[in-house]
Amino acid sequence: MRVAFQGEIGAYSETAVYKYFGLDVEIKPCTHLSDVFKSVEADEVDFGVVPVENSLEGSVNQTYDLFLTHDLKVCGEVIVKIVHCLIAHPGTRLDDIKTVYSHPQALAQCRNFLEKLNRKVIPTFDTAGSVKMIKDEGLRDAAAIASERAAKIYGMEVLARDIGDSPNNYTRFFVLSKNDASYSGKDKTSIIFSIKSYPGSLYNILGEFASRNINLTKIESRPTKKTPWEYNFYLDFEGHRTEERCKQALEAIKNKTTFLKVLGSYRASSLDNSNFHF
Amino acid sequence: MRVAFQGEIGAYSETAVYKYFGLDVEIKPCTHLSDVFKSVEADEVDFGVVPVENSLEGSVNQTYDLFLTHDLKVCGEVIVKIVHCLIAHPGTRLDDIKTVYSHPQALAQCRNFLEKLNRKVIPTFDTAGSVKMIKDEGLRDAAAIASERAAKIYGMEVLARDIGDSPNNYTRFFVLSKNDASYSGKDKTSIIFSIKSYPGSLYNILGEFASRNINLTKIESRPTKKTPWEYNFYLDFEGHRTEERCKQALEAIKNKTTFLKVLGSYRASSLDNSNFHF
Repeated sequence: MRVAFQGEIGAYSETAVYKYFGLDVEIKPCTHLSDVFKSVEADEVDFGVVPVENSLEGSVNQTYDLFLTHDLKVCGEVIVKIVHCLIAHPGTRLDDIKTVYSHPQALAQCRNFLEKLNRKVIPTFDTAGSVKMIKDEGLRDAAAIASERAAKIYGMEVLARDIGDSPNNYTRFFVLSKNDASYSGKDKTSIIFSIKSYPGSLYNILGEFASRNINLTKIESRPTKKTPWEYNFYLDFEGHRTEERCKQALEAIKNKTTFLKVLGSYRASSLDNSNFHF
Repeated sequence: MRVAFQGEIGAYSETAVYKYFGLDVEIKPCTHLSDVFKSVEADEVDFGVVPVENSLEGSVNQTYDLFLTHDLKVCGEVIVKIVHCLIAHPGTRLDDIKTVYSHPQALAQCRNFLEKLNRKVIPTFDTAGSVKMIKDEGLRDAAAIASERAAKIYGMEVLARDIGDSPNNYTRFFVLSKNDASYSGKDKTSIIFSIKSYPGSLYNILGEFASRNINLTKIESRPTKKTPWEYNFYLDFEGHRTEERCKQALEAIKNKTTFLKVLGSYRASSLDNSNFHF
């Protein structure tokens, strides 16, 4: 089985791949998120794993937008706890560090630690890639923020562990393929839709779920990009699209939306234990 | 009048300040978005101007989150068209450029141009700051992506103009102060709320607006950060909070929310001509 993800070896996305599929997979690291979608479409891999949401930062907008331009399904979800570490060449002391490299989101999540450390901070394109970079370029006065796994993979040393501001740091990933998953009894469904412009139009859509007692677990609006300040809506709800009440709700909103795309139904991650719905 | 914004002189946020207040203001550039909020709170400035949404990228999450930890009001909105330029030292030719610096969002918005250009791309913390950096460090084989104004301010040259992928690139800013604005006849109101967890709870809130024929113009969910996968909702609607039907709707949802914060009512920007509502 071949699975694509975005980032370098050691990225949190790679952890998500192994967590979902086990260690017996062949991985394909991709430079851009769009490459993951393209690889699945072109049958170069069987699955793709892409981040959709972080519990502190919110949605990964680029992933949501890519679902509009690629015809792929969501067939699974997996949640990974994010534990950031400060990583440097073996033998480096904290006092030696002059510069810290990482992805802007990781830097933002370690703001308190970095303010106390008070070193120069330089944004990069990814976490594990920063570890690789300071290794490859032999930067002995630099550190990177990434996962403990990234440190191991590149033979580097963890100077400080779990340096994030908040312990509630989780990233949710979607597993992509050409088909979604069959009914498991603990499913969620993700859809994208656009609506007509009149007062109550979103309210009327949500009513089709409320009247059938279907739990919504997420709603997100994203700019259409075609017309400024017009939005597509991304909605996750509990249930499988083949279940009767879900089927009825989807059928009912088809007539009330100007565009509807069912991204797929998939087994909910066991880590998704928030019980929050609306 | 003193007005704070985030970024270097020449930032798009500074353009927003002048567009809203005219040229006769004293500006205070801040390093972090949170510094803008703090400056207004501490009466160091009369107003702050912060980005809330880009028509291509969506919401500026950090701004939305700062409204939770600071007790400030929205008293105005202003929309700025974003026109990215490739900027370098005077006399530089495109062939001389080896590296392009800018904020990751600006880099992403010029993806097509940059792919054709095919140079090394390095993310930075801001657009105008990148122009200042290549000037101050005398980098003659580098360019930055920023506004034409930034090029003028730092005495640099525009090598290519309007290099963004999409012509529909606008950023919406909020004007912050300690009080919101009075009724103007063309107003919007922004609120934040949390809801109880039961199927239909968001639907019931939206019903208080739909039943009063109040147009919603934006809905956004943001993680609470306290509990993973729980959300606060950010809602914009047409009308002033002192208008009877708006007052009634706000009163009604007070009992249906677990938390409600009215960020304020303000005159809608004349550039907000999408007419899209729901």
